[in-house]
This record gives sequence, C-alpha cells and structure tokens, in this order.
Amino acid sequence: MASSDETSAEERLIAKYFAPLATAPGALGLHDDAAVVTPPAGCDLVLTTDGVIAGVHFFSDDAPGDVARKALRMNLSDLAAKGAKPLGFLMSVSLPAEIDATWLAAFAAGLGADATLYGCPLFGGDTDRTPGPLAVSITAFGAVPHGKMVRRSTALPGDSVVVTGTIGDAALGVLLRRDDSLAARWRLSSDMTSHLKQRYLLPRPRNALAEAVLCHATAAMDVSDGLAGDIAKLCRASGVAAEIDVARVPQSDAARAALAAEPARIETVLTGGDDYEIVLTLKPDQVGAFCHAAHDAGVAATEIGSVSAGQGVRFVRDGKALNFARPSYSHF
Amino acid sequence: MASSDETSAEERLIAKYFAPLATAPGALGLHDDAAVVTPPAGCDLVLTTDGVIAGVHFFSDDAPGDVARKALRMNLSDLAAKGAKPLGFLMSVSLPAEIDATWLAAFAAGLGADATLYGCPLFGGDTDRTPGPLAVSITAFGAVPHGKMVRRSTALPGDSVVVTGTIGDAALGVLLRRDDSLAARWRLSSDMTSHLKQRYLLPRPRNALAEAVLCHATAAMDVSDGLAGDIAKLCRASGVAAEIDVARVPQSDAARAALAAEPARIETVLTGGDDYEIVLTLKPDQVGAFCHAAHDAGVAATEIGSVSAGQGVRFVRDGKALNFARPSYSHF
Repeated sequence: MASSDETSAEERLIAKYFAPLATAPGALGLHDDAAVVTPPAGCDLVLTTDGVIAGVHFFSDDAPGDVARKALRMNLSDLAAKGAKPLGFLMSVSLPAEIDATWLAAFAAGLGADATLYGCPLFGGDTDRTPGPLAVSITAFGAVPHGKMVRRSTALPGDSVVVTGTIGDAALGVLLRRDDSLAARWRLSSDMTSHLKQRYLLPRPRNALAEAVLCHATAAMDVSDGLAGDIAKLCRASGVAAEIDVARVPQSDAARAALAAEPARIETVLTGGDDYEIVLTLKPDQVGAFCHAAHDAGVAATEIGSVSAGQGVRFVRDGKALNFARPSYSHF
Repeated sequence: MASSDETSAEERLIAKYFAPLATAPGALGLHDDAAVVTPPAGCDLVLTTDGVIAGVHFFSDDAPGDVARKALRMNLSDLAAKGAKPLGFLMSVSLPAEIDATWLAAFAAGLGADATLYGCPLFGGDTDRTPGPLAVSITAFGAVPHGKMVRRSTALPGDSVVVTGTIGDAALGVLLRRDDSLAARWRLSSDMTSHLKQRYLLPRPRNALAEAVLCHATAAMDVSDGLAGDIAKLCRASGVAAEIDVARVPQSDAARAALAAEPARIETVLTGGDDYEIVLTLKPDQVGAFCHAAHDAGVAATEIGSVSAGQGVRFVRDGKALNFARPSYSHF
C-alpha cells in the first residue's frame, strides 16, 4: 500500500529529466499547475506553437537530443522572424511505451543544451503516454517592444526582398536520408552529403538576427514550408506582388552541386521546406545596413527580389517565370 | 501546375475551421507566424499546457465538440486555480487520416462555444497529420495582478482546506463508460448514471471562482489527478502536513449511491482523477467569505480539513487513516 504522500512515477520523471531545465524563477521548478511570467517593461509577448511527430517531421532513428533540439528550434525560428527575444517555452511530450530512461536522458540533454544556447528556459509542460508515435509540441514565447512585432502583412510596393542563409539544403537533405543512392547521382562529396542531411536534422534558427529584423524589416516570416510558398503567404497577407530572381537565391556548395547534376531539383530547393531561414522585406536603403548586421552575426543575407503593387509571386529565371507543381509544403 | 501564390490545403483548413475562433486582434487572423499579446497593465501572465490523446484521455467515439471542450477546459481549470483570468490559448492538433470535414466542423464548433463562454479566444496553432491517434495539446494563458498568482507552495500550518464542487464523479463516470453493468450493481438511476458519465466527458472548470481564490486562498491547485494525490502535492510543495475528514469530502447524490452499494469505491472517489475542481487552503477566518463568494457564483465549496506542521496527508474516517493502493493518477 502506498501512502497518499508518495510521489508518482510521472512526478519523478519530470523531476529527474525536465525540472533541471526549468531555470527561470517563474517556472516554479515545475512544481505548480502553471508558470508565471512578468513581461519585460514596455514589451508585448509573442507566442508561437509548433511540434514534431515521429515519422512525419523526423526519422524514428534520429538521436533523441536532435529531436528535442529540432522541436525547440522550429519555434525559436518563428520568434526570430518576428524580431522577438526568446523568454522561454512550454512543452507537451507524448511518449510511446518503448521510450526508456536512456532515451529520455538524451532528449533532455539536447533540450537543455539549446535552452542554454538560445537563452530560452523550460517554463512548464505536460507528459503523457501515447499508443501512437512519439510527439513533441512546443509553445515558445518571446518579447518585443510594444507594438513592434514584425508582421507578414506590412510589406510595401518598392520594398526589397532579402533572405538569410541558404535555401533548399534541408529539402535535399531529407531526400538523401530517404535514398542513399542520390549522393552518387548528384556527385556529392561526403562533406556535402552530410551538410545537407544535417541541415534537415537540425535547423539553425536565426535568433542572432532578431534585433536587426526588428530595426530594418517592413515585414518578415520564417521560411519553413518552402521559400516559394512562404513568400506567397507574405505577399497575400500584405496585398502585394513580388518578383524573385532565381539566380540570386542563395545556395550552399552542396545544393549547387546537386542542381548541376539534376537541374530539375530547383523546384525541390525553392518549395521543399524546413529551411528555417528568415525572408524579409525592407526599404531598399535599409538592405545594406541589414546585410551588414547579419554579416557581423556570422549569417549571410542576400537580396533576391522586390515587392510591387498587385498580386502573385513570380520566380524568374532567364526571363521566364517558373511554375511549381506544389508551391508549398502542406500536411493536407 | 499550381502557381506559387495558390493557398495550400492546410491554409484553407485553418481559414475555414479555426480562423473564425481567432477573435482577438493579437491573433492576426491566424495569418502570421506568431500571435502578439499586450499584457494587461500591472499583470503577470500565467501559462499552462495540457492535452488529450484519443484512447488515453477520451473515448474515440466521444463527440468531437466535447473532445475540443475537454481539452480547453482542462487548461481553464489550471488558470482558475491560480486565480488567473483567461486571455486566450494556442492549440496544436494532430489529425489521423480518417478525420473528415464533418468531424472538424463539430470540433471547431465545440471549441468556439467554449472560447466564447469562458472569454478565451484562439490565438494560434499548429495542425499536422499523424499516423497515430488524434491528439490535441493546448497552451492557455491568463492574467493575474503582478506577484499575486496563487501557488501550491504557500500553504501554512493552521490553514483550513476547502474544495469546490463534488469529488469522484468523473472517476466513477469513466468506469461506467467502460462497463455498463456497473450502473445496475451500484443501483443508479439513469439520471445518476448520466450525471457521472457527463462529469467525465466534460469538466466544469471553476473560472467563476478565480477572483475569490485570488482574494482568499493562501495556496491552491486544480484537482485533476485525484484529490488525495493532489493535496499531497500541495502539502509537499508547501512543506506542511494535512488531515482530511473523509466524511466531509463533498459527493454528488450519484456518487453517494455508488458508495452505498460498493463502499470500497471510496478509493476511486478520492484518488481517481478528472475532477477539475479546486482545492485551496485559507486562513480559517476566510473560509466563510470564500464559501459565500462560491455560493454566489453557483458553486458549492466545502471545508474538508486542516493544515498542520510536519509532512504527510492523512485521510481520516472513523478515527482511522485510509491507505490507498494508488494515491494519484499517473500516466507512468
């Protein structure tokens, strides 16, 4: 017989693996029903939620620490694109029966490493058993000066379009994960192959650029469902059109090699998703300052096109607009 | 060939079913990466997350609207116990392939009804396909005056223990859902049977009492994992002991009937979970004022015991402490 004051297995699991990540005072050591956040003076809170499911967003044999980091970084990428500084996150994790202590320890270690790296501690959570695949849902929150969150809907005709990092790596990387023979077909070095796979495995959210986005962008969003579809979303929200110069879309050496071997993969690069870069619009006279700030933060930023009145987004190569079979990643 | 500015099926699903629930300006019509919340002046934000999985937290044949409402109400209950006024919620929903438009419409209708009823609009979300069971994870946020969130860890020796509503209904209700023959064994009327089943199906979070909890409680938490285990958690967090008079734990007529037929079910009543009531501690001179405020809000509130120095929680009946085989609901 257990006495009523004995801790449950669920409490012990939380205390062992997750409470050490709950370093903010308002997380109350995960010992309460809820967390409490005092918003920084003069700031709004920015809230975003995104998650991963085994077999859908990651491979079941991915390292547990990478699964945790990917789930957190997907949300950090949204905060970065909105110009927000991370404050913390809540996590809901659904664990199949086969998850053991070794897996949980590695998962928590990865999560804790990124919570520290990005200054984004765990504030609370919910832990359940599931008969289905492992699933992790995260809600992250950040701070921006009141009224200053950078939106999708505020791009203006005449703005320039800039994108961070390189585009298409993760979309090529997931194809390589599914079919090893592609590396030979695309004549990739092993470094190139592992670069592309790694870009799918672990996003590199551009939180180092949040302040520059806040200072310089007229509108922004994170590129997670494919550059073509995401720019189209931004333009629809803003009621504007855009023209993108395909030749200027930044690519890694590995992506360039794959495209040289199989030029039709340009559609994968432009629409494939999982880039976790930022696409932003800015007044042309702000492009230099933004790109300089990005360079100082160790991130490339490239002007790829411009906004105009009207509607529709054209991806132009050799004077002709590309058409895509599936412009944007969608689960439905 | 689709042009790059065509909306995706995911965008259309969100626009059709969920955007109508995103009535707050900061939700930006669900057209952005993130939502923005300006905290009420002088307030802290209270954050909580909880979710449901088909076959674990609800029956697969439960009405879709009730599934949505249960998921939201579990979170509203946490806000109520912390003395917080709901501001809104984010939702992550994982849909198996068999979910169709009829199901989604009913789910969204239930969610919308409760969002209106509790003044808690949708601020954002994430929608995925899953090869597993249907799952809904919600993060709710509310406001309390700065520094005033009611915690678990602040109960003091000499405090009284009060609980809202009635205890054990949902735990008996889920047994009735699983085994129809129990209704006859417990000699329940059909009204009693449906009362107990309904209490499992749809929590009644006590948000009408949040203000009274804020004014009068020294500590509080919502009762979701069983009264015995939850009071034990509160006492451990506060570093105190408590003695609960089992005879005073409030029961519905239906629960009393079941217990008369099968007295050993007292353990189910006290440890079974899913009550979604509030247990709070208060100075003895505040009990009257709290119970009066609860009565005015149409909710019973009952003094059931007292806090003392030391550790451990005793549930006393006829002068003897009960022992429980499993004091608290745990998924692990």
